[in-house]
Amino acid sequence: MTETVESRLAALGIALPTPKPPVANYVPFVRSGNQLFISGQVPMGPDGLEYQGKLGAGFTVDQGQAAARLCAVNLLAVAKLASGDLDRVRCLKLTGFVNSAPDFGDHPKVINGASDLMVEALAEKGKHSRSAVGVAALPFGVAVEVEGIFEIA
Amino acid sequence: MTETVESRLAALGIALPTPKPPVANYVPFVRSGNQLFISGQVPMGPDGLEYQGKLGAGFTVDQGQAAARLCAVNLLAVAKLASGDLDRVRCLKLTGFVNSAPDFGDHPKVINGASDLMVEALAEKGKHSRSAVGVAALPFGVAVEVEGIFEIA
Amino acid sequence: MTETVESRLAALGIALPTPKPPVANYVPFVRSGNQLFISGQVPMGPDGLEYQGKLGAGFTVDQGQAAARLCAVNLLAVAKLASGDLDRVRCLKLTGFVNSAPDFGDHPKVINGASDLMVEALAEKGKHSRSAVGVAALPFGVAVEVEGIFEIA
Repeated sequence: MTETVESRLAALGIALPTPKPPVANYVPFVRSGNQLFISGQVPMGPDGLEYQGKLGAGFTVDQGQAAARLCAVNLLAVAKLASGDLDRVRCLKLTGFVNSAPDFGDHPKVINGASDLMVEALAEKGKHSRSAVGVAALPFGVAVEVEGIFEIA
Repeated sequence: MTETVESRLAALGIALPTPKPPVANYVPFVRSGNQLFISGQVPMGPDGLEYQGKLGAGFTVDQGQAAARLCAVNLLAVAKLASGDLDRVRCLKLTGFVNSAPDFGDHPKVINGASDLMVEALAEKGKHSRSAVGVAALPFGVAVEVEGIFEIA
Repeated sequence: MTETVESRLAALGIALPTPKPPVANYVPFVRSGNQLFISGQVPMGPDGLEYQGKLGAGFTVDQGQAAARLCAVNLLAVAKLASGDLDRVRCLKLTGFVNSAPDFGDHPKVINGASDLMVEALAEKGKHSRSAVGVAALPFGVAVEVEGIFEIA
């Protein structure tokens, strides 16, 4: 049996959602040559926004990691929509924005929730460059937002 | 009459300024292949900085949108300088940084001020991917900073 | 004598460190075509993290500049590892994240510490586009994090 991104996601019990187009003058992704720029994803689940909170002010690193993982699921959902086939996709760069109290410092651990999923799903092609920073606030009070640049083979 | 980016800007009553080179070791834009990386733009108007304030701490969403729109005007001014012809330009990605109090959450509405102008000016080629986040502080206390990646045909 | 990036660094008294791979599912750099995406660098020195503090809350602009310069040294170290030869490298974009109190506004001056080193080391090829913003918090409480996109000739 050939292992594919879809088979790995199935083994993880992850069903990718169908991305909803933003209700504004921007789009979920833009392709330029073989690069794919994906809009910042928030922890949107099947029943609406999840993980609204601030790290270092009530939210734990575990909750932050789960939020980051859900952002990454949504990035993959957009990458699938854009590429038609996740086996053609490589993750080049993730930028992880963590909603942080001023003295929080565990941003790398939080964003590992997104990085780990990329490698679980895309294997070698999931190994990306990354930045993780702590922001003052995020849309609708979510704990994490992650944007990504991908490459389509 | 053929509609051009310049004719749309004229209809909107927008005159693009001549970008001033930064007084430092960076430049307003760098071109790599057909991609154009434009430095973060602040709400600089003809008479100096405008919109110095913080969202969720005195500044309204309307003021934030106006600030974001002015940042986008400045992005277009640099894109014109870099390309020579805005009809050859496509907006790939905007990143909007909003100067935010810790409990502010309407960053998408604020950055719509920039996104809307991109589509008003560039039409289909103005539809971009985007991230909007809330930062603790911005240069000179401005309310919004927006950076962009463009493509030149 | 031909001036090279290495000779300029030597004249500045800068010895590039050997980058340590991150202890996580991301990597120091990813190359896509001739673009090089380098992960966000913190002020890691030979003996561990330096410059842990917040601008506008105890840390001076001078300290911030030194932190930014050290981030830039680490970016060049990764660029050398990725390219094998820094004379083939051009800096396209830097994004500087400054750990800031809510009323700090001198982010451009702080990030000049990174921008200046790029031009001192890479000369014309060091002139980059740039954004500088103030974030609420950074990993391990460092004062500055800088990420970069480079081009390899």
